[in-house]
Amino acid sequence: MSAPHPFADWIAADWGTSHLRLWAMGPTGAVLERARSDAGMGRIGRDDYEAELLRLIGHRLAPGRATPVIVCGMAGSRQGWAEAPYALAPCPPPGIAEATRAPARDARLAVYILPGVRQTRPHADVMRGEETQIAGLLARLPGFDGIACLPGTHTKWVQISAGEIVSFTTAMTGELYALLSTKSVLRHALDAEGWDDTAFAEAMAETIARPERLATRLFTIRAEALTAGLSPAAARGCLSGLLIGAELAATRPWWLGQRVAIIGAAKLSRVYAEALAAQGVEAERFDDEEMTLAGLTRARQSLTENAT
Amino acid sequence: MSAPHPFADWIAADWGTSHLRLWAMGPTGAVLERARSDAGMGRIGRDDYEAELLRLIGHRLAPGRATPVIVCGMAGSRQGWAEAPYALAPCPPPGIAEATRAPARDARLAVYILPGVRQTRPHADVMRGEETQIAGLLARLPGFDGIACLPGTHTKWVQISAGEIVSFTTAMTGELYALLSTKSVLRHALDAEGWDDTAFAEAMAETIARPERLATRLFTIRAEALTAGLSPAAARGCLSGLLIGAELAATRPWWLGQRVAIIGAAKLSRVYAEALAAQGVEAERFDDEEMTLAGLTRARQSLTENAT
Repeated sequence: MSAPHPFADWIAADWGTSHLRLWAMGPTGAVLERARSDAGMGRIGRDDYEAELLRLIGHRLAPGRATPVIVCGMAGSRQGWAEAPYALAPCPPPGIAEATRAPARDARLAVYILPGVRQTRPHADVMRGEETQIAGLLARLPGFDGIACLPGTHTKWVQISAGEIVSFTTAMTGELYALLSTKSVLRHALDAEGWDDTAFAEAMAETIARPERLATRLFTIRAEALTAGLSPAAARGCLSGLLIGAELAATRPWWLGQRVAIIGAAKLSRVYAEALAAQGVEAERFDDEEMTLAGLTRARQSLTENAT
Repeated sequence: MSAPHPFADWIAADWGTSHLRLWAMGPTGAVLERARSDAGMGRIGRDDYEAELLRLIGHRLAPGRATPVIVCGMAGSRQGWAEAPYALAPCPPPGIAEATRAPARDARLAVYILPGVRQTRPHADVMRGEETQIAGLLARLPGFDGIACLPGTHTKWVQISAGEIVSFTTAMTGELYALLSTKSVLRHALDAEGWDDTAFAEAMAETIARPERLATRLFTIRAEALTAGLSPAAARGCLSGLLIGAELAATRPWWLGQRVAIIGAAKLSRVYAEALAAQGVEAERFDDEEMTLAGLTRARQSLTENAT
């Protein structure tokens, strides 16, 4: 087909709280087109999903047949397009067999939403989207046995064994950093660009060793800026280091002596990798978008297998 | 004087970041009138202070003489009415001798701003306003030797000995609670009124004992609300308990085996008193407004002594 817009074999979609990422995929696994928008689950209503999909990628839909659209992320939450009830860990990353079909008026769409994963023990926890990145990791590294660390707004630490998500835990480190750096009194200390690696490393070492001090250590950033000329770059490194150090203290059993794969955006992954390296753990790194697409691709493959 | 508005002997002012509280004081120490407004330091410009004062309490100023206005709090910060540079701990709570005179066009005003206190060791820290409450505590309990705990947006723990502020530390517990309960993903779990004492006590015990778990424990509030029906009342008690427990873990040397005086609003003071009681510490409680006024009154008395 030599048209300017060859039709997609299928559509991959990572539909999160704040963003939507789409890939129009060719039959051989090639990416025909990427698209993204800010129409995240938190910003649109249930009736807007189909229109947004058609707006971004409608020109890739062949007439006369239903193109599979495989979706992971918050679009499957209760407030999303259609609820895809959580799978219960321990379990393999959910695949197409566990997917929920979302309603679509346009007959060119066959929408499958992959569920997230919940656990009840050792504590209640949930994920939506990360399970698909883990499916991607397992597609890339079959038999991976160890810990996946997925840094972000809500960083996940996931124990993986025998192809299953065994258990996991969540640290709100990214959200805490965002709130403290933009909404708290500490924002005054961080009111210019810059980043200080040494301040980061020192602060991280401090809360890894003495996590109980976090509650009173945060305000000293403000006090040092006011009375001792702490620079915004040092303040930013320090705040990030204190929070990631506290996260590493809380997750020590998840990384100490473990094989760790970090799945995340390049910059944040590097910060976590350096933090772990300082603790003697050499983590492997994987791009989060790539792992999401690999996970969605695995679901696409099992859809084909099921159909044959 | 039998006029409807007898003139004030002096004016006491607690001028914080978000609020202003005024007391028009009679010559015998009686409160003639109380006034308050939202014209805190964070909301007004340098040129607005005098007008706000006159608006609220101008009718209490006798013509033909300068009435002392004694101010504590953020009005003395660099962004306030006039900077009152910090006194350096260890030091007694600063009094009228350390006050900064703020400019006023109206000849009926003689404005004194009391400085805050800073320390450089064992870590950088600052206070503005709390030092005056401590002056009030020392006026009430001369010779007090122990710890003052001043719960609030930024809770202060202050070591007091021989009439001096020896050292202090700050926990951002109140601000963290406000941010997490209204701006973070946890807000969904707290979206109705209510308070669960048992959830509070259990969560507090958890982070006192294992403060390093805080980083991963917070998100379980969201997960339990989503998957296990955690009530908003239990979620609210739990979040508060986790944060206050983490604060008590960080401040253990400040209360363990110490004489503790809590200076705060009634409801919050009770929470801290119960938390400390669960750890075997019976704290005394003092009202924060009363201590502020007692501290400002002490400054007023030394102004009279200096003048004679």
